[in-house]
Amino acid sequence: MSSRADDTDAVADVGLLTPIAAGTVGERLTSDRAVVDAMVRFESALLRALAQHGIAPTTATGVADAIAATDVDPRTLALAAPVGGAPVLPLIERLRAAAPDDVLPWIHFGATTQDVVDTALMLMAQDVLRQVESDLGRLAVTLADQVRAGRDVPLVARTLTQHAMPTTLGMRIAGWLSGVHDAVDAIRAAPTLPVSLGGPVGTTAAYGPEGPDVVAAVAAELDLAVPVTSWHTRRTPVAAIVHTLLGAGAAGGKIAADVLLMAQSEIGEVREAEGGPSSAMTHKANPAQSVLVASAARELPPLASVIEAAAVAEAERPAGPWHAEWQSLRWLLRLGSAVAERTADLASGLRFDQVAMARNLDQLVASVGADESWVATQTDATRPWIDRVLARHETMYP
Amino acid sequence: MSSRADDTDAVADVGLLTPIAAGTVGERLTSDRAVVDAMVRFESALLRALAQHGIAPTTATGVADAIAATDVDPRTLALAAPVGGAPVLPLIERLRAAAPDDVLPWIHFGATTQDVVDTALMLMAQDVLRQVESDLGRLAVTLADQVRAGRDVPLVARTLTQHAMPTTLGMRIAGWLSGVHDAVDAIRAAPTLPVSLGGPVGTTAAYGPEGPDVVAAVAAELDLAVPVTSWHTRRTPVAAIVHTLLGAGAAGGKIAADVLLMAQSEIGEVREAEGGPSSAMTHKANPAQSVLVASAARELPPLASVIEAAAVAEAERPAGPWHAEWQSLRWLLRLGSAVAERTADLASGLRFDQVAMARNLDQLVASVGADESWVATQTDATRPWIDRVLARHETMYP
Amino acid sequence: MSSRADDTDAVADVGLLTPIAAGTVGERLTSDRAVVDAMVRFESALLRALAQHGIAPTTATGVADAIAATDVDPRTLALAAPVGGAPVLPLIERLRAAAPDDVLPWIHFGATTQDVVDTALMLMAQDVLRQVESDLGRLAVTLADQVRAGRDVPLVARTLTQHAMPTTLGMRIAGWLSGVHDAVDAIRAAPTLPVSLGGPVGTTAAYGPEGPDVVAAVAAELDLAVPVTSWHTRRTPVAAIVHTLLGAGAAGGKIAADVLLMAQSEIGEVREAEGGPSSAMTHKANPAQSVLVASAARELPPLASVIEAAAVAEAERPAGPWHAEWQSLRWLLRLGSAVAERTADLASGLRFDQVAMARNLDQLVASVGADESWVATQTDATRPWIDRVLARHETMYP
Amino acid sequence: MSSRADDTDAVADVGLLTPIAAGTVGERLTSDRAVVDAMVRFESALLRALAQHGIAPTTATGVADAIAATDVDPRTLALAAPVGGAPVLPLIERLRAAAPDDVLPWIHFGATTQDVVDTALMLMAQDVLRQVESDLGRLAVTLADQVRAGRDVPLVARTLTQHAMPTTLGMRIAGWLSGVHDAVDAIRAAPTLPVSLGGPVGTTAAYGPEGPDVVAAVAAELDLAVPVTSWHTRRTPVAAIVHTLLGAGAAGGKIAADVLLMAQSEIGEVREAEGGPSSAMTHKANPAQSVLVASAARELPPLASVIEAAAVAEAERPAGPWHAEWQSLRWLLRLGSAVAERTADLASGLRFDQVAMARNLDQLVASVGADESWVATQTDATRPWIDRVLARHETMYP
Repeated sequence: MSSRADDTDAVADVGLLTPIAAGTVGERLTSDRAVVDAMVRFESALLRALAQHGIAPTTATGVADAIAATDVDPRTLALAAPVGGAPVLPLIERLRAAAPDDVLPWIHFGATTQDVVDTALMLMAQDVLRQVESDLGRLAVTLADQVRAGRDVPLVARTLTQHAMPTTLGMRIAGWLSGVHDAVDAIRAAPTLPVSLGGPVGTTAAYGPEGPDVVAAVAAELDLAVPVTSWHTRRTPVAAIVHTLLGAGAAGGKIAADVLLMAQSEIGEVREAEGGPSSAMTHKANPAQSVLVASAARELPPLASVIEAAAVAEAERPAGPWHAEWQSLRWLLRLGSAVAERTADLASGLRFDQVAMARNLDQLVASVGADESWVATQTDATRPWIDRVLARHETMYP
Repeated sequence: MSSRADDTDAVADVGLLTPIAAGTVGERLTSDRAVVDAMVRFESALLRALAQHGIAPTTATGVADAIAATDVDPRTLALAAPVGGAPVLPLIERLRAAAPDDVLPWIHFGATTQDVVDTALMLMAQDVLRQVESDLGRLAVTLADQVRAGRDVPLVARTLTQHAMPTTLGMRIAGWLSGVHDAVDAIRAAPTLPVSLGGPVGTTAAYGPEGPDVVAAVAAELDLAVPVTSWHTRRTPVAAIVHTLLGAGAAGGKIAADVLLMAQSEIGEVREAEGGPSSAMTHKANPAQSVLVASAARELPPLASVIEAAAVAEAERPAGPWHAEWQSLRWLLRLGSAVAERTADLASGLRFDQVAMARNLDQLVASVGADESWVATQTDATRPWIDRVLARHETMYP
Repeated sequence: MSSRADDTDAVADVGLLTPIAAGTVGERLTSDRAVVDAMVRFESALLRALAQHGIAPTTATGVADAIAATDVDPRTLALAAPVGGAPVLPLIERLRAAAPDDVLPWIHFGATTQDVVDTALMLMAQDVLRQVESDLGRLAVTLADQVRAGRDVPLVARTLTQHAMPTTLGMRIAGWLSGVHDAVDAIRAAPTLPVSLGGPVGTTAAYGPEGPDVVAAVAAELDLAVPVTSWHTRRTPVAAIVHTLLGAGAAGGKIAADVLLMAQSEIGEVREAEGGPSSAMTHKANPAQSVLVASAARELPPLASVIEAAAVAEAERPAGPWHAEWQSLRWLLRLGSAVAERTADLASGLRFDQVAMARNLDQLVASVGADESWVATQTDATRPWIDRVLARHETMYP
Repeated sequence: MSSRADDTDAVADVGLLTPIAAGTVGERLTSDRAVVDAMVRFESALLRALAQHGIAPTTATGVADAIAATDVDPRTLALAAPVGGAPVLPLIERLRAAAPDDVLPWIHFGATTQDVVDTALMLMAQDVLRQVESDLGRLAVTLADQVRAGRDVPLVARTLTQHAMPTTLGMRIAGWLSGVHDAVDAIRAAPTLPVSLGGPVGTTAAYGPEGPDVVAAVAAELDLAVPVTSWHTRRTPVAAIVHTLLGAGAAGGKIAADVLLMAQSEIGEVREAEGGPSSAMTHKANPAQSVLVASAARELPPLASVIEAAAVAEAERPAGPWHAEWQSLRWLLRLGSAVAERTADLASGLRFDQVAMARNLDQLVASVGADESWVATQTDATRPWIDRVLARHETMYP
């Protein structure tokens, strides 16, 4: 097996069509290389656990270390995957090729393809969710500062595209911040993701009565949880990840939507720090980061629906639904984390224009035939709500 | 305004194309009538709260009682809705028509269309989720009995359509049961749904500094929660409902998928209590309930994606996303609760055929060249997992 | 069987949550009543065809007439549907109840449930598509007039939310019109929808060698086409309907999106004829029709995905996918036709504001540092494109 | 600009999570490399057209040739893309870097980012659809042979999971073949895809009155069609591609679904040529190709819904919808063509087992209490339908 399949450059996707993700941390955490590394971690942890429980010989521990350091080329696995329908058999062959004879039979012992892939995806998801929480935290802190700064800055609230009533910039951003808080709460409240180790039919039969113990040992090694029972066809953990990522996507997407609205040429209440240059018009500065975030937010729900539909998985392991999850979950993780990272960047660079806000608000005041005291009455009402949001923020980020 | 628009029969949907829901509790809880009743409850509760806080005159309390008893025809509202884009203005006109002059201005005071509809949908969702929890509880108890009864009944486990290894009927059903447990846990862990009362732009400005207090009073009246701030464009509560319903749909859909597989003519391991008659073939008994459940489970994820996409809602109230939620949320609630109710019925009537199970298992044993002790080794391993699932069950349903 | 199930009012959906459709022609064409009528038409046509071919006695022709006039209550069928999974068996019982003994066995002879429902849905779709073509035609004529009137009206073109370059109102509306043309072309190019009459397993075995002739006779009676072979599990006709409706939805949705943008308070380039009143703010006139159209356009793609997924239908008739089509197809038809009708109304009432257009364009001209000749150079370039669009229009609507 | 960004291996997707596509022709046709090549082709063709029309100097033709041969690294473009939101500006910089000063201003002259990306995607789609038609043709020829061979092979037809009535293998495969015919017809009937060249706001203003001529020249160079007017926000061409790919996906998905059903251990009517090995059970031969096809067929409709939703694109170029198309369209093309290629391979290797068919049919005959003549009556009825399908086939593949 060569270290690199030679058609890689001709077939690789390297982010060209997903600028939202290109160069982000989440892109790297969800690459094919990352998946392979996580699959290798699983096999290594399993072998170590088998040695611990006296199922594999004690020498297996050293082999587990060696496995963890094996260089495996993703494209080579990919090209070998179609025969069996998954990239696991070629991986095991690769790992066994380097193992001594007495340990060789214990590599992957008692596990099934789905255990390897599902555990790898959970390890990836765990990393990504940690990163998302971090980026959302950065975003929340930025927004909280903007809420405080914008507390007494009146501007026009819009409903169904029309000027409605006065509000404050602080109130609008408090709404953004609350969405981010909700997304962070969901990540924090989520239980640790589970290891998958059910064996061919979810019974861990190869380990005899020690099944739950072996599962617990592998889980401990990988910082994952022990499931109540096999989740080969009970996709609750995946559904939870999806729900969490949708929350992050919604929080970021809402902010991008408002920036896109406020940044319109006639409105001009905000600009991105670095307006995106146009390939055709030098006078333009596009809100390019918001466009990318808005675009990614549109892709998440349909990707989620692939996974939600795959929850109906027949038999002990299904013929189609599960395979459809892989790519969709990877993209949810990648796009969801890209939304978090990009929105945090975006928010920190926003330039608010109070002159434009005042001008637009004057238009409303004139159309209503009101005066400044009316504005004050309206905007005063935002204070208790803003205080509630900031109080939550201080609890979450003390 | 007549009490009933006369084209109702010609346009009404009465369940003809959704047999899964026809006649269920959830159908009634999510009808247009139920929505109207909930909107009326909101307006009544708001008026009462305004009287309590001295905003409306004390006589408003009596009017609030009268409002609560108003008969409002859904079709009449529907026909008047397109002008303003929502069925709320015609409702308010209807309610005001019967109110005395001094109270009239206080009906709907400080609220906006979205407050009425969103609160009504939350009231509906609260009712439906309670019903779903009840039906899933009934289902869980049935399944737990079947797990216990099937604990030592070996049968063939199938993966990717093929005979794989032996398992037990108890283990398979324990998988179903765990899915139901997960769905119930999600309902139980869900926070109380919030009232919506932000007023035109989410600031409750009409109530002055008492905004949060008025909101709290209405929430208390309706057994709903007080949101940290307006959720007009922060759709976390709706997303949580959707996620919960998807969980119920997945739990039921998984069971239906397995019944459909096991009920196949060549497999014959289970039958529905009352096989559905065929319009063309009297010798057939279709697993009609499972078909309906499987069918509904396919509809849920795309409906969910409408709502997930609507989470990106621009400005203080958006021009499109929110309106798209209404019908999709109603159908998610209706189909989700129908899945729970029908699956509970379905499960309680399942007739397992141990002769068929033994026959199919023999085929596997022969193909592997094994014997009964091999089967016993495999099936023994299921016990600790079954015990874990049953222990959880006993904690949840003591 | 009573003529009306008594819980109808308590469960009926009468358009409350879909104001876009309430009161439209498409709502009526897609009601449960309309489905029942179409199912009855199928059974009547089949019986007549059987008499024609000497399979049923000649007296069956008179019974076919009587059947066609039978009053059948949709709710009664709906309540009886869950047992068998479809509303067809109770319909047949109802029709047989009134038939003489010698004709009774020939009612529904050789047909299966799916034939009845699928043919009824095709009849409904045929009616709806005719209506959509008519509404889109009305819309196209309106838009063509506006293109001509706006041919020399300069206004600012916007890209990625920003002022980009000058264009003309005629050019913008020519883009709308082209979308409508595309949608109409798709309807006109669509082949006649097929009858479904395959019998239990798609072989028309009950008719012996005359199968294709009987199918042709029923098709002729119903103005439907004869399929090359049974399409029970080959859903091309349904996919074609879906694609066509998505085209109508896109054409209307694009117009609504632009109206929503141009109608914003700061932009003010267009208003709807009757601005939607606000339940809370009397100074507002919401673009309510555009909001409804935009909202419906969001629901169509996910509904489409239910049907697209159901194209993977196993065996001779599947256990789930087909059942999931019914409701989704009805809603696609209803919402798609509502978009066409409402957009035609909307367009005919648009009030364009050339003062606002000039003001916004001035802003662009100033920001670029250009002058009027620059605007003229830019807008002159639109003429050949406008001419191409109008030429197509004149070919399509001579 | 180095020729290769050095983090490529760490971020590249090389097919690991999409074994259906790994190693297929469609994978290569849709890689980032292929997109870059197509973008370069567009810029080269545009420059040549500008020289032809005397807009650019005649020396530009030679530069156009040089551009066409430029080596551009996709990852470098991807990393530079987020600033402007698309990989076009860095591409133009790269191309201009090598151009002489007098030609430099004419590179990309009059075009906009969307023109480059949309045209590149059309070029890619054109290639992929040609490949899909070829693979479906191969599939159709295989199936037609199987229809002829299976014409008189009786087997049991199944509906709603249950034995229903006898049919023939030829009739079942004729259903598959008809689906493939439908998909091929759709590709053949599709109009040539259009070039995109509208310039910043769709008016081709940079080319003055020659706009349509320049567009026609570029279209001719690239074997694409001239649109009636700019389709920047009229996404009919993309919708047509999506519809066509869904048809291919449905045709393949249906076959895979039936193979998965018929290959079940208890049914055994068919096997794949090379059963996929199991990572855990050596006695198993999984129908791995069918699983992969079934899995891909599940991903297509949600991806389609992203693009269908993006058809509602505001203004002259929208802020989000269009960007969301790129990745979804690529995956639709890749997965759709993978389905066609894999299903063609799958079908050609199917091993039908007439003994199993007879055994299963005997079970039905016994349950009905019928005899062989009954089977013959039923199966004879399939002949005229089979003949119709084969007649169509011979017309399509003479």
